[in-house]
Amino acid sequence: MRRVLVIGIGMGDPAALTLRAVEAINRADVFFFLDKGEAAAELIELREAILRTHRRAPWRSVTAASPKRSAESGYRAGVEAWHAARAEIFARLIDEEIAPDGVGAFLVWGDPMLYDSTLRVLDTARSVTAPGAPPFEVEVVPGICAIQALCAAHAIPLNGIGEPVEVTTGRRVAGATPEAPAFVALLDDGTGLRALIERGWAGRVWWGAYLGTPDEVLLAGPLAEVGEAILARRAEVRARKGWVMDVWLARADV
Amino acid sequence: MRRVLVIGIGMGDPAALTLRAVEAINRADVFFFLDKGEAAAELIELREAILRTHRRAPWRSVTAASPKRSAESGYRAGVEAWHAARAEIFARLIDEEIAPDGVGAFLVWGDPMLYDSTLRVLDTARSVTAPGAPPFEVEVVPGICAIQALCAAHAIPLNGIGEPVEVTTGRRVAGATPEAPAFVALLDDGTGLRALIERGWAGRVWWGAYLGTPDEVLLAGPLAEVGEAILARRAEVRARKGWVMDVWLARADV
Repeated sequence: MRRVLVIGIGMGDPAALTLRAVEAINRADVFFFLDKGEAAAELIELREAILRTHRRAPWRSVTAASPKRSAESGYRAGVEAWHAARAEIFARLIDEEIAPDGVGAFLVWGDPMLYDSTLRVLDTARSVTAPGAPPFEVEVVPGICAIQALCAAHAIPLNGIGEPVEVTTGRRVAGATPEAPAFVALLDDGTGLRALIERGWAGRVWWGAYLGTPDEVLLAGPLAEVGEAILARRAEVRARKGWVMDVWLARADV
Repeated sequence: MRRVLVIGIGMGDPAALTLRAVEAINRADVFFFLDKGEAAAELIELREAILRTHRRAPWRSVTAASPKRSAESGYRAGVEAWHAARAEIFARLIDEEIAPDGVGAFLVWGDPMLYDSTLRVLDTARSVTAPGAPPFEVEVVPGICAIQALCAAHAIPLNGIGEPVEVTTGRRVAGATPEAPAFVALLDDGTGLRALIERGWAGRVWWGAYLGTPDEVLLAGPLAEVGEAILARRAEVRARKGWVMDVWLARADV
């Protein structure tokens, strides 16, 4: 049966790869890259550096242009239309590039389970593969995600003793402060943290960008003291590199 | 300066170790094990198998008996007293076993950030090291945690598109159903899942035990259909092995 490996590769530290990920990288016949344009060129380069380091044999890769996500018709509808367009691409890649007993691989930043569309898109792709094409099996290799890289860099626990943690998005934090005593904001363009500052939220935050890479930046402290500094630093590093991957944890209970 | 490595080693799959964890294992001068008694003997054995596989030089380890957690005086107070007792042990281990420029290591199941006391206890240990003892630095190496192993085994995303996820405990789910559309229950002795079944909660659950090991067991489906089967299976495998490590994800939105 055709097999699709979805391999979590961590946040940019090549040593954050698991041994299982290295094994999987050496099992793949072909790697699929989605080119999301300029800003992510450095990310593609980082991914290729991982292959150069860990892949023992020569490798074949196929790069497809990623469809643009439409900003129209609301967030969720926009995401769903984007997923459908990507599913068509995935199905074509799988049909054209993976032999009947072959293995294709997607390398995913962080962990494929967390705010990543690859698994969902592959699920949709099953229904749009060519008529009569053999089915494919998906195998997931977990990777160190942003939350883990953040907590490790700050050497802190995620949760209070026996306490819950909400994992959420910047968009949601902008809408309302989560009720959990601790919460992590992913995919925040700064508006989530800004909203929290403006609400006068009392608690501590731990922020990190480019975690695990030589560009890593960390800031932490009571939000009232470090909130503006984090937003300023974020804008500054983003302007310098053209993109930023960051994450923050907020805890009201410390 | 003395250094303490807190190394996440995943859930039992030796290949779930990261390259960074392997490097850290080879940097340590001494490993600290806390013996929690009978049930965990197999876990200590698994940990030693990881050292046998990945440690290149001979290694020294020190095993201390872990203090018992008192069931009296409430959950949080009990945990805090237990932390204090462990901090005394950690401080003694660090003072007696790590040279002024040496490196000690704790191997932690999963990821040290998630429902694990090691980082918190080390923080307390700082204040109880011997008078005049040099300070120590803590370095964290993240590891694949139960949530990741579960999602990978089932090949599913953790969250709905743009949706939040609550990471919580069985004890809390037993008290009240989380409001998030998705939630993960850790440290559940079965009472959390039992409570959810009795409340007639409508949604799907994905359960897994001994994730990533040859004993791995997976069950998934609508709670109304698989809830009792999960509890029965859990009791059965726990009785057979004497201990169980498991985790489950519930999603109301699918």
